[in-house]
Amino acid sequence: MKKLRRKVYMVAGYNTVSMGTGRKEFNPKKECPGLEEYIKEAGQGTLKLIGGAKNVDECAIGNFMGSRFNKQANMAAFFPFIDEGLRGKPAIRVEGACATGALALMTGIKSVLAETAEVVLVIGVEVQNTVKAMYGADILAGAGWFKDRKEGHAYFFPGQFSDRAGAYFEKYGRDKTRKAFARWYRNAIENARLCPTAQEHHNTTKDLEALAMMEPNGRSFVDHLNVFDCSKVSDGASSIAVVSEEGLKRTGIPKEQAIEVLGFGQAEEDLTKKPVEQTELTTSKLAVKTALESAGIIISQVGTAEIHDCFTIAGVMAVEALGLADPGKGTDFILEGNTARDGKFPINTTGGLIGWGHPTGATGVHQAVTILEQLTGKAGDSQIKIPADRPYGLTVNMGGNDKTLVSIVYHRG
Amino acid sequence: MKKLRRKVYMVAGYNTVSMGTGRKEFNPKKECPGLEEYIKEAGQGTLKLIGGAKNVDECAIGNFMGSRFNKQANMAAFFPFIDEGLRGKPAIRVEGACATGALALMTGIKSVLAETAEVVLVIGVEVQNTVKAMYGADILAGAGWFKDRKEGHAYFFPGQFSDRAGAYFEKYGRDKTRKAFARWYRNAIENARLCPTAQEHHNTTKDLEALAMMEPNGRSFVDHLNVFDCSKVSDGASSIAVVSEEGLKRTGIPKEQAIEVLGFGQAEEDLTKKPVEQTELTTSKLAVKTALESAGIIISQVGTAEIHDCFTIAGVMAVEALGLADPGKGTDFILEGNTARDGKFPINTTGGLIGWGHPTGATGVHQAVTILEQLTGKAGDSQIKIPADRPYGLTVNMGGNDKTLVSIVYHRG
Repeated sequence: MKKLRRKVYMVAGYNTVSMGTGRKEFNPKKECPGLEEYIKEAGQGTLKLIGGAKNVDECAIGNFMGSRFNKQANMAAFFPFIDEGLRGKPAIRVEGACATGALALMTGIKSVLAETAEVVLVIGVEVQNTVKAMYGADILAGAGWFKDRKEGHAYFFPGQFSDRAGAYFEKYGRDKTRKAFARWYRNAIENARLCPTAQEHHNTTKDLEALAMMEPNGRSFVDHLNVFDCSKVSDGASSIAVVSEEGLKRTGIPKEQAIEVLGFGQAEEDLTKKPVEQTELTTSKLAVKTALESAGIIISQVGTAEIHDCFTIAGVMAVEALGLADPGKGTDFILEGNTARDGKFPINTTGGLIGWGHPTGATGVHQAVTILEQLTGKAGDSQIKIPADRPYGLTVNMGGNDKTLVSIVYHRG
Repeated sequence: MKKLRRKVYMVAGYNTVSMGTGRKEFNPKKECPGLEEYIKEAGQGTLKLIGGAKNVDECAIGNFMGSRFNKQANMAAFFPFIDEGLRGKPAIRVEGACATGALALMTGIKSVLAETAEVVLVIGVEVQNTVKAMYGADILAGAGWFKDRKEGHAYFFPGQFSDRAGAYFEKYGRDKTRKAFARWYRNAIENARLCPTAQEHHNTTKDLEALAMMEPNGRSFVDHLNVFDCSKVSDGASSIAVVSEEGLKRTGIPKEQAIEVLGFGQAEEDLTKKPVEQTELTTSKLAVKTALESAGIIISQVGTAEIHDCFTIAGVMAVEALGLADPGKGTDFILEGNTARDGKFPINTTGGLIGWGHPTGATGVHQAVTILEQLTGKAGDSQIKIPADRPYGLTVNMGGNDKTLVSIVYHRG
């Protein structure tokens, strides 16, 4: 993959609260804010930071399943609802299951590279608490092949990753792996507690690891994962502006408040096929490899990463896909404390999907916002120290069971 | 809008049959081909013409409502199902209601402009005959704002355009307008009869205009439109390759078999608002104006156009939005025979949405395939003579009630 033909930056990140069970203000019995309210809050959040709608050339919105959760498509036409100044401007909605958010970022990146835009407003959004969890699981199963869903697990995706966990247990041992899951959960919640928009911000459990060691209850859920191994049902939106150097000037944002996109990798695997290898995320690995190569760096130069821990087992396998540990050794890497916020390689510093939340279409954008905050020193209580010799950030956003992948490498602006 | 920074072409168009009522082989009681079969047929159709999957850098798929019609999202992951050679390559799904197909084209165009790809495989697809028409109407209503749908017409979109027809009748007279609708229908069917993939290819009605003058049956459908004023429920897929000059060389396709993208216009209007003017497609008008200006031409230089006649009234208003007739005079322009295949300004020469069919997510791509065929002399029985001094083609693809718009201007390669 060749170098990007033009400099591309991201600025002005904004997250709504990731709303759902666990947040004090969440009450499923009251009417919740709708899809368009989340879109408006996030969009206005970024517009305010970039000098308003007049500075925007194009818009992109990522949403996975609004057509079922909210009976709503054609969401590009919500941009003028955010701000009348966006009337008449080009916009698009993109989708790639849980990798939707990063595909929206890629759309912005490509528009800037194409020089059709100097400033692209990118939003990711999902509002999922409109239906009960069981129906929600059926809706999210749309990320997998329809025909596969006629057999197998009721909770389709937890089932898919439970099978992966089972295979990992068998190949590499159950005890250590389960402990690594529990540690992953603890790191996620501890990070979330420091981030005011995180769904688990109010979590007060004392011994998180003990809790997360709970035995899976196979009959009522899935065989190898308990509820703490799973990201929750979340409503939320995140937004960011993808800009050129010209866009930085136009919006008056200094480079120190921006991150530069140095490289990216996108990859697809056949939706109709079983995983090539149950204990590895082979497509994730390919996307990360491409992203690092296109950025011209290696993984040890990365200061922090946001990875797609829809389930703890996905977190473990992502650590391996990043090249931080050999197959089967991701558990050790985690148990040694390396992925914790004070560890050698901090991952998901605002809580990730398990701690911050997983409003599916928003997640990829939220990852970019966290990297932006961390690399520019604006992460508030969540701030970690980025080593001077590792000034890079990396994200991995995954759609379906390792099917649609986007990895992006960033550098301090 | 500035000139495109790089030459962009389209080549190797392919259409499946537009399947549904009217086609002899259509039998809703038998199991129909699924979404993935349509995707595979269209994708392989284009791959065969461009030297195979090895020549493809990126993929884009347009689909509007597969998440409801087919319980299927994450469709980018069907590309490796088309051809194993597409495994690991970047792909994305895009959506903008019935403008979805053209947004998929725009995604390809921007990737070529961005130089992230020299060859992009673009597919549009929709398989809608999985549910009864009444449920289908509810699904397609997702192109409009959810909250609007709590009141008003059961058949939401026919209702929206029936209201527009009623307003047009009131402002400019009912009799002439209804005659123009009937002529539009006749032109559509006559064109479809010449195109083997058209849904109305087998239509044998003798006096099409007399039939189309039928009084609307308001109680069981809508007030101001009859069924011949409406595009039908269609299953189908179309595909095309968007390529650079380098891509032309790589695929070995001579320029004479390509069309060049000279300019485009994209525009959004607020989904939550009523139309600015019931008798005008103001957003369509803006998109066409931008497209023509960016191509540096005027409408009288265009040899043929593919416009979005989801309903006959949309056809009439599109003629006006193109600048071919003043407001209220589109009807005269049509009744004078100008838009017929032997007229001054042939429109929808393979039948358009009413004649060829309207597999929603595919329509925008089908429009490009028709322009490609006409401008390169490969339209078979549908071929019209393009005047030497008007070597341009134009498309207008509309999502929702004039909400999401894409217009593209092409020139013989």
